[in-house]
Amino acid sequence: MENISIGLLGLGTVGSGVVKVIRNHQDKLVHGVGCTVHIRKILVKDPAKERSVEVDPAMVTVNPSEIIEDPSIDIIVEVMGGIEETRTLLLKALENKKHVITANKDLMALYGHDLLKAASENGCDLFYEASVAGGIPILRSVVDGFASDRIQRIIGIVNGTTNYILTKMSDEGMSYSEALKEAQELGYAEADPEADVEGTDAARKMAILSTLGFSMNVGLSDVRCKGISGISQEDIEYGQQLGYTMKLIGTAERDNDSIDVTVQPALVSVSHPLAAVKNENNAVYVYGDAVGETMFYGPGAGSLPTATAVVSDLVGVMRNMRLGVNGHSAAFPQFEKKMKTAEEVFKKYFLRLVVEDEVGALAEITALLSTEGISVEKIWQNPKRGSVSEIILVTHKVSEKSFEQTLVKLNDSRVVSRVGSSFRIEI
Amino acid sequence: MENISIGLLGLGTVGSGVVKVIRNHQDKLVHGVGCTVHIRKILVKDPAKERSVEVDPAMVTVNPSEIIEDPSIDIIVEVMGGIEETRTLLLKALENKKHVITANKDLMALYGHDLLKAASENGCDLFYEASVAGGIPILRSVVDGFASDRIQRIIGIVNGTTNYILTKMSDEGMSYSEALKEAQELGYAEADPEADVEGTDAARKMAILSTLGFSMNVGLSDVRCKGISGISQEDIEYGQQLGYTMKLIGTAERDNDSIDVTVQPALVSVSHPLAAVKNENNAVYVYGDAVGETMFYGPGAGSLPTATAVVSDLVGVMRNMRLGVNGHSAAFPQFEKKMKTAEEVFKKYFLRLVVEDEVGALAEITALLSTEGISVEKIWQNPKRGSVSEIILVTHKVSEKSFEQTLVKLNDSRVVSRVGSSFRIEI
Repeated sequence: MENISIGLLGLGTVGSGVVKVIRNHQDKLVHGVGCTVHIRKILVKDPAKERSVEVDPAMVTVNPSEIIEDPSIDIIVEVMGGIEETRTLLLKALENKKHVITANKDLMALYGHDLLKAASENGCDLFYEASVAGGIPILRSVVDGFASDRIQRIIGIVNGTTNYILTKMSDEGMSYSEALKEAQELGYAEADPEADVEGTDAARKMAILSTLGFSMNVGLSDVRCKGISGISQEDIEYGQQLGYTMKLIGTAERDNDSIDVTVQPALVSVSHPLAAVKNENNAVYVYGDAVGETMFYGPGAGSLPTATAVVSDLVGVMRNMRLGVNGHSAAFPQFEKKMKTAEEVFKKYFLRLVVEDEVGALAEITALLSTEGISVEKIWQNPKRGSVSEIILVTHKVSEKSFEQTLVKLNDSRVVSRVGSSFRIEI
Repeated sequence: MENISIGLLGLGTVGSGVVKVIRNHQDKLVHGVGCTVHIRKILVKDPAKERSVEVDPAMVTVNPSEIIEDPSIDIIVEVMGGIEETRTLLLKALENKKHVITANKDLMALYGHDLLKAASENGCDLFYEASVAGGIPILRSVVDGFASDRIQRIIGIVNGTTNYILTKMSDEGMSYSEALKEAQELGYAEADPEADVEGTDAARKMAILSTLGFSMNVGLSDVRCKGISGISQEDIEYGQQLGYTMKLIGTAERDNDSIDVTVQPALVSVSHPLAAVKNENNAVYVYGDAVGETMFYGPGAGSLPTATAVVSDLVGVMRNMRLGVNGHSAAFPQFEKKMKTAEEVFKKYFLRLVVEDEVGALAEITALLSTEGISVEKIWQNPKRGSVSEIILVTHKVSEKSFEQTLVKLNDSRVVSRVGSSFRIEI
């Protein structure tokens, strides 16, 4: 029986999982592809470091060339992270006609197009299912499962750290900093949590999802991004009282031929399945022209779930090798990218205004909104808290541009002390 | 540019959807596979019948040979339903080296193995994504997405009709017959609803899912099946009071090397995502060794959703044609089928007992359960309703065999008038 040799770049959380999945499910791999899989070499930074899997020390190297230049290695599995150095390594691997599987969302969001092009030119496969939503097979669902449909909208909870924090704030009344601390203690958040809490990690995943879903070359800089560090317990509670749950939401929407891609904290109706996605879990909601509403739910990270996605990609590469058809699976964009302007994005909004507690504030605010063409679905004057009086509003759909302009005018209004907060109501 | 010719068997709900999806998304198909797709002939029973799509009358035929024997047709799309006649037609099509896409769960549950074998022998593809859970790409997720994992448990809400009925009974307090009537009026249930409400339709889908998920040749007769026609409003209400929702649940479970596959009304915890699957929607929960818990949600039926699955399969066949690798995708079972016995299946149960209203009934029942080795998680003596007094129990896990034997003894007990109902608590 033929044997396929793997070079593994990285032996951290996901890398250790890949070793385990290949070892534990070897019989299924053999049945599925008709050959055995063998990890030949593993690139690590520190060979002395204790690992959660035992590997033969002779397999371990600190020199990437020993893997990238080894002619006996067929497939590179990249789970080391990093951007520039990793990109150079993978381009070299592809030039050497090695297939590549990567879990690296940072890299794919920035250089996916170049890497896929290099793979195609070298007759190699480049698969990256694990880069978005860990164990959920969402990329192959978008590409293959909906191959016949026109995807109009993707809404994703694609960052487990922020979903954990918001769940704790919503369900247990924790403050942002308490919830972040707990997430860090449990290993769901890094010591430096910025990429997660400021939305960058989610933005990378939305760039990848919208590139595939809309068949346009969407880059990280196309994703308008806002994090959750400014979320207060009040916002969450007001949302709940109105029937909404706060989530860090990635949206990718298409109308006709132009698109809008964002990551931001937003409210979703408690009756929507996305509201039930708790803790570190991920979910991706996909709306297609023909299929309608679908949702994919599961673990967005973690050693074994992410490794499952990596090794399932490995099966795909090996099947293609057996059939001699590698290098044909990259789907290059069908359309020129065209982003919507702020005039073209229409949303419902939640708005919290801190007002002077004077007679007529409500009347003056509603008059201002009416002048700006914003109609109000719900309005609610909250009992005074200390010396602060608040007005909570839910608008009907309004363009983002009009809404932003109105916020400026509200801030200038005599009766408004300040705009406390505002959020999109996403679904 | 090359043109692929399709023969369409059937122009009902799904067939009309297939025509629409191919027409509306032709540009995506061309981009995805590099060739155009053209429906050459359509088999119908009654050419005079009004359809929801317009088709050239010259394309329509009542004679299947005009399609199956037409050498210019590359791919057969079967959406006519039926079993024996359809099987003969498809075997003939495969012999004639035509690839086949089918949405026919009845056929695949009964003769899937034979048809896949014929396809493989003739170098043809046979895809059937649409046969389970309509628009949800669940079969490719099970086969490809979890190619590296060992699936241990599948729980499916895979019949939209019964889910609609149970949703109406649960959320609006309708009786079974009222909810069935409404489902029939809305077209969610057939005039003869037996295959849906007695669980046969769901059992077919569970046979297909467990065959793929466990890599064993699971047939329809291996699925122990019970329908929802005996469900009362009381059962639903008691379940709700205990924190559960009633669903028609398909389960496929593996422990070590033996499996159990069932369809039955069962209770699921209201906090589980499956409880939030309402109305005619479907969802499939998959638990894998490595990936953990995932769930796939979407429309389980309907013209366009099901057509999306059919035409996405078509894209798969056409990609394989372009690469010259048809006939390699059927995954034949890795394992001998081994079903669990009733001693080997362990579940929690809900139990409703109608008792004589006499002192000591509770004590006598708990003593009997204790003697049978059944431990009780919750017990609740309901206020008398008319002359009837009831006791509601939730057990800890117990073998199905023990539970069934205990039911007989309870029925014989002096203090029990009758066993009102019993249901598995699934999750």
